[in-house]
Amino acid sequence: MAKITHVSPLAPSGFPQLPEIDGAEFSTVEAGIKYAGRKDVMLGRLAPGTSVAGVFTRSATRSAAVLDCQSKIANQSDAGAAIIVNAGNANAFTGRNGMEATKAVTNAVAKSLGIPEERVFSSSTGVIGEPLPFERITGKLEEMRGRLSKSGLKDAANAIKTTDTFAKGSAAEVNIGEKTVKIAGIAKGSGMIAPDMATMLVYIFTDAKIAQPLLQTILSELTDLTFNNITVDSDTSTSDTLLLAATGKSGVEVLEKDSPFYDALHSVMLDLAHQVVRDGEGATKFVTVKVTGAETSKDARTHALAIANSPLVKTAIAGEDPNWGRVVMAIGKSGAAADRDLLTIRFGDILVAEKGWVSPDYSEDAGASYMKQQDLEIAVDLGLGHGEATVWTCDLTHGYITINADYRS
Amino acid sequence: MAKITHVSPLAPSGFPQLPEIDGAEFSTVEAGIKYAGRKDVMLGRLAPGTSVAGVFTRSATRSAAVLDCQSKIANQSDAGAAIIVNAGNANAFTGRNGMEATKAVTNAVAKSLGIPEERVFSSSTGVIGEPLPFERITGKLEEMRGRLSKSGLKDAANAIKTTDTFAKGSAAEVNIGEKTVKIAGIAKGSGMIAPDMATMLVYIFTDAKIAQPLLQTILSELTDLTFNNITVDSDTSTSDTLLLAATGKSGVEVLEKDSPFYDALHSVMLDLAHQVVRDGEGATKFVTVKVTGAETSKDARTHALAIANSPLVKTAIAGEDPNWGRVVMAIGKSGAAADRDLLTIRFGDILVAEKGWVSPDYSEDAGASYMKQQDLEIAVDLGLGHGEATVWTCDLTHGYITINADYRS
Repeated sequence: MAKITHVSPLAPSGFPQLPEIDGAEFSTVEAGIKYAGRKDVMLGRLAPGTSVAGVFTRSATRSAAVLDCQSKIANQSDAGAAIIVNAGNANAFTGRNGMEATKAVTNAVAKSLGIPEERVFSSSTGVIGEPLPFERITGKLEEMRGRLSKSGLKDAANAIKTTDTFAKGSAAEVNIGEKTVKIAGIAKGSGMIAPDMATMLVYIFTDAKIAQPLLQTILSELTDLTFNNITVDSDTSTSDTLLLAATGKSGVEVLEKDSPFYDALHSVMLDLAHQVVRDGEGATKFVTVKVTGAETSKDARTHALAIANSPLVKTAIAGEDPNWGRVVMAIGKSGAAADRDLLTIRFGDILVAEKGWVSPDYSEDAGASYMKQQDLEIAVDLGLGHGEATVWTCDLTHGYITINADYRS
Repeated sequence: MAKITHVSPLAPSGFPQLPEIDGAEFSTVEAGIKYAGRKDVMLGRLAPGTSVAGVFTRSATRSAAVLDCQSKIANQSDAGAAIIVNAGNANAFTGRNGMEATKAVTNAVAKSLGIPEERVFSSSTGVIGEPLPFERITGKLEEMRGRLSKSGLKDAANAIKTTDTFAKGSAAEVNIGEKTVKIAGIAKGSGMIAPDMATMLVYIFTDAKIAQPLLQTILSELTDLTFNNITVDSDTSTSDTLLLAATGKSGVEVLEKDSPFYDALHSVMLDLAHQVVRDGEGATKFVTVKVTGAETSKDARTHALAIANSPLVKTAIAGEDPNWGRVVMAIGKSGAAADRDLLTIRFGDILVAEKGWVSPDYSEDAGASYMKQQDLEIAVDLGLGHGEATVWTCDLTHGYITINADYRS
């Protein structure tokens, strides 16, 4: 694995203070799955009465753990639940043995915690195609169980990292009536990130009380506004998993989608999604691509992703080159409707192009100066309709090549 | 523009000997469009009776020259024809002035050569969004006309280069009856290359006699087997143009598609398409991606392109890492049908994975040793049906980043 010697220049100033979520406890351990000298497994125990919702990769070659989670996620049960995650080995494309390894882990967790196996959700992230040494996980379960703690979520955020250069966390509190609902989440992911859930693992916990079907509806809808609109390299992993657990311990019940809880969860998910992009492999720029005026929202998203995934756009951004011609190119190739002569392109507040040509007021110096910023916005209006979409991405740099040209060595 | 100091390591050993095509003459000139100290415009004159067929980018933001060619290509005429090409400026996204510049050039060529303007085909390649200084071209027309020569095609191949590191040419001769038909072609392109015709300009000439509709049918069909199956970076240019001119001077008439001419033209087009990939920006490996056993040919192509365009697959190849897990990932994300447990993956002759897991006979050493070769083949059999497709690509290296992070500076 390539040495990661730097923290991403786009990283937040520090890990946030995460509130303790009543009903959720965490523990981590050094299991030596692949890495030496660091914790690489997390265990989460969720109190009886917890609802769990999930969103997973749509990859046709998804991992055993993902398949197992998907088969369990819609079950409703008042029993407790557990989440077990290892870094270093994805247990993906490991044939029949893959499912056996997953079952061995979830079965052992169920026994250790005294909960039904169908309430144990597992994830594995790391190298594809190597057998998961699951005994290293199951052999540490008693040790982990003994150290479960409400304050363990920060350590968990560190334990699930692979090529991540910083641990990712986010939290919100929202007052509902006279009570407070807390939300705390962690995420990992920095490469193989693309819409439709890429190499990301995300675990979010709240003490709100929400029935599973509503929890799932809220999670799926907010995923489309957050994690499904980020891309680092257009590649999609076999292991992506986003789990949301609601313990109910605050005593506040959320009964409908439109609620302050929805907005608070949205902010946590958006924050975590942005942190994943900010840890994009080799990233030096955080880029918001906003497309408006498309015929449909779908068209807007197609254009936004064509821009965000274009290697030529991404390398231009890396070079701080205000190369709007490549934005035009990306719109042209996307396949969605566009009329060259109606396009308006802005870099931040700078009007770059309109009516099919560079704006008469645009100066290359102003554009070049803008591109030196770390956070950039490329805005395109198509002038065709009311469809809009926003996508977040990063630049494509030598760092990406260095990290990925010898990940396994 | 980034300095191109090296010829691609994948370049052919030299420029081929191109036969002279009776009825086709070429001339080049230093017009100073953007570059200094090199020829940057080519003019081709085609004798009366020449049929011209063409294939063009499908970009929604295609350039003025492409729009102009498309409006003319189906015209049939016994008048002569001309091709005029400049490098350094794409005359794309230049608003109304773009079409005026194109018309100024084609009009001047028509007058200079005494042919109808609707028989003058122009292309422009280079930077997007800057006005084309067309007077520099029209001011050199008389000089170019005076130097038209049947032996000028090699110089033309050099004049149309932009980020290319070598000039691209290919030729074939085929005996039909007792006569010989000659084919000679040139191409440019190295970045912004993706299926559906990317930043490529390709001009192919033959002395066969073929009516325009048949010529177009043959060209379109062979494009789908050659240029539409190559990709460097998944980006598609606004300017791609492939013109095929048949002067008829050999006296051999091609009357139907199935003919030795078809096969000879196929070989020339495939050779030129491969040369474009071999000049892929920063490329150090030439990669053939072969997908078989898909439900449909369309599915096979979707999988092959997902592999060929995956930044993680391409960086692994650059790192000589036999990371077949990333191939599995790319198949999974492509959206086309796949069954993990039926996949077979080979690197060259090496069986890497089968039945959803790494092959028991596979050794990482053998894989790593294979990856050191310059020409690689990744073969995937999906085990689902009879659809197949082959796509050609290159690796993604630091060189690509260096070239594209400051192309305009």
